[in-house]
Amino acid sequence: MQGPVQSSSTSVIRSSLIEPDGGVLIDLVVPESEREAKSVEAESLPKVWLTKIDVEWLHVISEGWASPLKGFMREDEYLQSLHFNSLRLKDGSFVNMSIPIVLAIDDETKERIGSSSDVGLVRPDGELIAILRSIQIYKHNKEERIARTWGTTAPGLPYAEEVITPAGNWLIGGDLEVLKPIKYNDGLDHYRLSPKQLRQEFDRRKTDAVFAFQLRNPVHNGHALLMNDTRKRLLEMGFKNPILLLHPLGGFTKADDVPLDVRMEQHSKVLEDGVLDPETTIVAIFPSPMHYAGPTEVQWHAKARINAGANFYIVGRDPAGMGHPTEKRDLYDPDHGKKVLSMAPGLEKLNILPFRVAAYDTVAKKMAFFDPSRAKEFLFISGTKMRTYARTGENPPEGFMCPGGWKVLVKYYESLQAEELTHQSAAVSS
Amino acid sequence: MQGPVQSSSTSVIRSSLIEPDGGVLIDLVVPESEREAKSVEAESLPKVWLTKIDVEWLHVISEGWASPLKGFMREDEYLQSLHFNSLRLKDGSFVNMSIPIVLAIDDETKERIGSSSDVGLVRPDGELIAILRSIQIYKHNKEERIARTWGTTAPGLPYAEEVITPAGNWLIGGDLEVLKPIKYNDGLDHYRLSPKQLRQEFDRRKTDAVFAFQLRNPVHNGHALLMNDTRKRLLEMGFKNPILLLHPLGGFTKADDVPLDVRMEQHSKVLEDGVLDPETTIVAIFPSPMHYAGPTEVQWHAKARINAGANFYIVGRDPAGMGHPTEKRDLYDPDHGKKVLSMAPGLEKLNILPFRVAAYDTVAKKMAFFDPSRAKEFLFISGTKMRTYARTGENPPEGFMCPGGWKVLVKYYESLQAEELTHQSAAVSS
Repeated sequence: MQGPVQSSSTSVIRSSLIEPDGGVLIDLVVPESEREAKSVEAESLPKVWLTKIDVEWLHVISEGWASPLKGFMREDEYLQSLHFNSLRLKDGSFVNMSIPIVLAIDDETKERIGSSSDVGLVRPDGELIAILRSIQIYKHNKEERIARTWGTTAPGLPYAEEVITPAGNWLIGGDLEVLKPIKYNDGLDHYRLSPKQLRQEFDRRKTDAVFAFQLRNPVHNGHALLMNDTRKRLLEMGFKNPILLLHPLGGFTKADDVPLDVRMEQHSKVLEDGVLDPETTIVAIFPSPMHYAGPTEVQWHAKARINAGANFYIVGRDPAGMGHPTEKRDLYDPDHGKKVLSMAPGLEKLNILPFRVAAYDTVAKKMAFFDPSRAKEFLFISGTKMRTYARTGENPPEGFMCPGGWKVLVKYYESLQAEELTHQSAAVSS
Repeated sequence: MQGPVQSSSTSVIRSSLIEPDGGVLIDLVVPESEREAKSVEAESLPKVWLTKIDVEWLHVISEGWASPLKGFMREDEYLQSLHFNSLRLKDGSFVNMSIPIVLAIDDETKERIGSSSDVGLVRPDGELIAILRSIQIYKHNKEERIARTWGTTAPGLPYAEEVITPAGNWLIGGDLEVLKPIKYNDGLDHYRLSPKQLRQEFDRRKTDAVFAFQLRNPVHNGHALLMNDTRKRLLEMGFKNPILLLHPLGGFTKADDVPLDVRMEQHSKVLEDGVLDPETTIVAIFPSPMHYAGPTEVQWHAKARINAGANFYIVGRDPAGMGHPTEKRDLYDPDHGKKVLSMAPGLEKLNILPFRVAAYDTVAKKMAFFDPSRAKEFLFISGTKMRTYARTGENPPEGFMCPGGWKVLVKYYESLQAEELTHQSAAVSS
């Protein structure tokens, strides 16, 4: 039954696969010495105008969070991401890649690019920031992309509605050369540490275990309990100097999430108030946009942190999930995130630390690990409930969040209400 | 940065993975000596009633087409299939598994099963045919299953509408023990060779290359040209005795497809008329139901044939595809099937042979490989067009299909029309 070995000259199909990064992070920012010449070249190329979110993804790719990806996905990478949540590399190994990282263009832009093999990328303010080389243009089937990424096509998915649906009918992939590091000039750039900078910081602190905590919400004492408990467990396992990477997501979030600047202020207070120990915590911004794609997205959240040097990842109930946009239920089974993460190709070496559920202990008057034997004495305070407290000016139970952090939230929701009142009176008077 | 090696006693999550089959096909039919005792035991267990299509899947699993899968999927296999189109095995290797092979039950059945760890499976005619052991019951999120399998949730997907939507809200997984080989008693059972029987037949014929051709339509001379050409190419590559596995799908198909018995008769004529060489062809039925899930399903079609001993797989334009149910376009990009197949985890060793497009050459008056330099002289005859010819009694161009095979189709469509007329006159007279 065994036939002759096939030579590679036969017409058997094998797609082009990308090279592994060999543990060395991709850094796609061109050296300063070449910047001038590349800028001149970029000016001569057909231009593609980026949206704010395209720039966030370009930032993500340029710093190596998605390494070994060297640019926006070509069709082979896109298809592997959609169907397999992973890419096969030239050496036969797999890396996890669960979210398509793609750049959409419209018909008119495609027309304008014509047969050019390279294009210049322009950010919304008109600055030319990158070259995309050896481009490939292919169809953007939005319905299929949404269905395979979110497991639903129901209307009301924030990223789908705000980013994918209005985008062009084509995707353009290629290799990125970024002319200079991406900055936002919003007073938070010092928090935007690249994977390389994070690895250097971990080395400087001589840590032997980095545990990453992804979040897009304010930190309450339940989160803190869990992070502090994780550190304790790592010490018990024999690690000498575990470091927490408190890593709030900095890109696109949905309209009713707390904005990044408010969250960063809140996180600062949590450290100031001593709820988390500044000596063993690094706070940095993860520049990725948010998909709210549950089990698919949690893989991306973990994979990017591995690239930045984390070796433990904390995962909780319904990570990256949200309510179903049209039905009264969670969009994802709350346990699927950690199950999918634990089986994901390319994440075999990641140490996944499951959450223990924390809730407000009404007897001890503090956040504590839930004890099912006295379930009635615990109060679960969801993100929605927390926002309602802050919005109505009602105080949450004592010990739910440090007072400094809570004040930041109250101030934010007061400012929102003031804004709403202004809008309403403007609407009445007009 | 490297920490101590983690012991397996820590609370890091790792899901249970299934064992590889080590190249030995799973055969889940119990030995005859145990049949009596197992039947008695099965009678004592809570019962699950199967649909016709559940029995088709049970047949598929029991013979090892889906090996190393040993029964209907538990949640870990189901999630890996949905998200990764593959399963990771205990030895770290991947096998392809692109389609969820699951058994749905309703609330009432779940209730009835209670805490029993095993159940008896009953076919629609009331015969108890199998035991499902160490069961796990988990939620059947139909929307998510459909979106991730088909890349759309548009109404009108045949398998989704006829099989998934009416099914229960729970899935039940476990290990199968089948009490005796599955038979259909439709006069076609002799065509239903198991993977084991096929491997034995290939060995008997001393073949050194098996090339599989999946089909669910009648064979026309364009297919034949391609299969004969493939054999020629394999001989040129140095193989001594290539065998064609002509492998029509025998399970669920959509209502306007030609039924299995008609197709089998048509295939016989094609061999009788000498269009395909009976000496180097094996015709057998592939017992799987059809999903029409394009790039996702073509992986299943290839994987199952590898299990049956094939080492070359012929793939054409838009394999397992169909028109979009609500839009005027193909549901899948016609090239995605072969691209996805060529990159699929667990299919690295499969030799994929791309179709050369055959069309009717109006000058040579025969099916020939399409020559773009004289495009106008070629006529593309789609499956829909072929069915229209047969339905209207019009003859297709000479040389499109062998006369014996064509007659079978004409006869079938005449019988359909006679049936329709009977229904219409019955409707008029009632």
